Amino acid sequence: MSPDAACWTPERFYREVRFLDNFSAGTRGAASAEYFLAAGYAVIFLSRQHSQFPYTRRYSHTTNPFFDILQEPESSDSIQEVRVQQHQVGTLLPVLRAYHQARQAGCLLPVPFVTVVEYLFLLRGISEAMQPLGRHAMHYLAAAVSDFFIPLDHMSEHKIQSGDGALHLTLEPVPKVLGSLAQEWAPASYVISFKLETDHELIVPKAEKSLERYGHQLVIGNELSTRKTEVTLVERMADGTYTTMPIRIPADSSREIEQDIITRLVDRHVRWIDATS
Amino acid sequence: MSPDAACWTPERFYREVRFLDNFSAGTRGAASAEYFLAAGYAVIFLSRQHSQFPYTRRYSHTTNPFFDILQEPESSDSIQEVRVQQHQVGTLLPVLRAYHQARQAGCLLPVPFVTVVEYLFLLRGISEAMQPLGRHAMHYLAAAVSDFFIPLDHMSEHKIQSGDGALHLTLEPVPKVLGSLAQEWAPASYVISFKLETDHELIVPKAEKSLERYGHQLVIGNELSTRKTEVTLVERMADGTYTTMPIRIPADSSREIEQDIITRLVDRHVRWIDATS
Repeated sequence: MSPDAACWTPERFYREVRFLDNFSAGTRGAASAEYFLAAGYAVIFLSRQHSQFPYTRRYSHTTNPFFDILQEPESSDSIQEVRVQQHQVGTLLPVLRAYHQARQAGCLLPVPFVTVVEYLFLLRGISEAMQPLGRHAMHYLAAAVSDFFIPLDHMSEHKIQSGDGALHLTLEPVPKVLGSLAQEWAPASYVISFKLETDHELIVPKAEKSLERYGHQLVIGNELSTRKTEVTLVERMADGTYTTMPIRIPADSSREIEQDIITRLVDRHVRWIDATS
Repeated sequence: MSPDAACWTPERFYREVRFLDNFSAGTRGAASAEYFLAAGYAVIFLSRQHSQFPYTRRYSHTTNPFFDILQEPESSDSIQEVRVQQHQVGTLLPVLRAYHQARQAGCLLPVPFVTVVEYLFLLRGISEAMQPLGRHAMHYLAAAVSDFFIPLDHMSEHKIQSGDGALHLTLEPVPKVLGSLAQEWAPASYVISFKLETDHELIVPKAEKSLERYGHQLVIGNELSTRKTEVTLVERMADGTYTTMPIRIPADSSREIEQDIITRLVDRHVRWIDATS
């Protein structure tokens, strides 16, 4: 089922005051984009407005404000220059170079969205534009998209008033586009979805069920509390069986788990291209 | 009604996968903090994690990434220095100086929160700590806090599964703490709340009703679509009447409306201190 353009107007949507969101800051997507770029992929970074961004995420407003690493010129300086503190250059410079390189090479295209409806339309449009890439395309669906939403024709025109007691909401399931994506919008692409669970036991069975149902290539399963150190890749093989690949890093590792995930995914993608060409 | 600490554990909260959020990036709060600092106030900046931050907000990840204003050293340079591009210094330097000055003077204390429950506890704790300031304290409640929430004992232990059709949610009204704040937690403070409406006609009557109900000093009314160029201040006077002060800036103004709002508020605050001392 594909979203219906006729019922959607941006003007209408931007009057929403409240919406259902999730805990995610988009760190996994932003980190993964960096490692895909390092591996030679071009990245269309479809991400929620104000979520984390590749490279610059390392200098967030609160935990490591970039204004803190800049030094003001001395009043005696003849030219007013602003420099990065010298002891910060070693950490900053490789990140800055990678960012500039990706942008100048035209390999990193940010596409922001706000609502789940925008996300779905953009995903379809981008997927269709990517079709000429054939099997060299990959979809890495790290956006924590809501499973539920309030359709436009159920919305209140004005802000819902408080003071009338409890608020009863009925949310409809978001159209499951993974099937449309894997079968229609991007039939040749290597499609990777995420499964986030709070119950570890559910990860592998639900990943296999999802692959069976939607016909895509790989699910990255993770549990909310351990998602930064442990994931489970479940891949659907050509013979219809499933291969499970756990990835784990030590809790005190200076390496990000996304580095290991992307190394593995690039390997799986290349094998899959070779096997089917 | 004050939040009940006994039912709240941080461990429990951080397992929430989805929550009800709002459209706000916190721009009004961040901009206002800058103008309060410029007016000589010390600011405790209680703000949602990842929302806009004073000063650094001008270099956001997406619209004006700060990595874009930094230039890499030439490979021939003897010292590897990273500088801000010279043509950017004029814009950056006053902002950077104001930021450093506020931080070094200890006048800007960021306090991040995630959920509405955290917000309420922090607001109470901060208010009680501020009581020695008497009438010199001001509360500027710009955080777009949800009117509704799902109490802890109604929450699902694990992530709600999709695929079972529509999701029915019952949200309870968030305890109205404005009365507790104005009467108990910060009885001497100049308390300013916000009213955001999508229907312009409701702004003044609802502001007056709010002042009457909670007994605080001033409401800033604004409409969703015009909030960046137009607000209405409604103040409760000593004689029980209400004064309405509209503030408007041209749509193409380079000045931010928060500058005019804070100028007006500082004036009202000072008059109020003088009138009651």
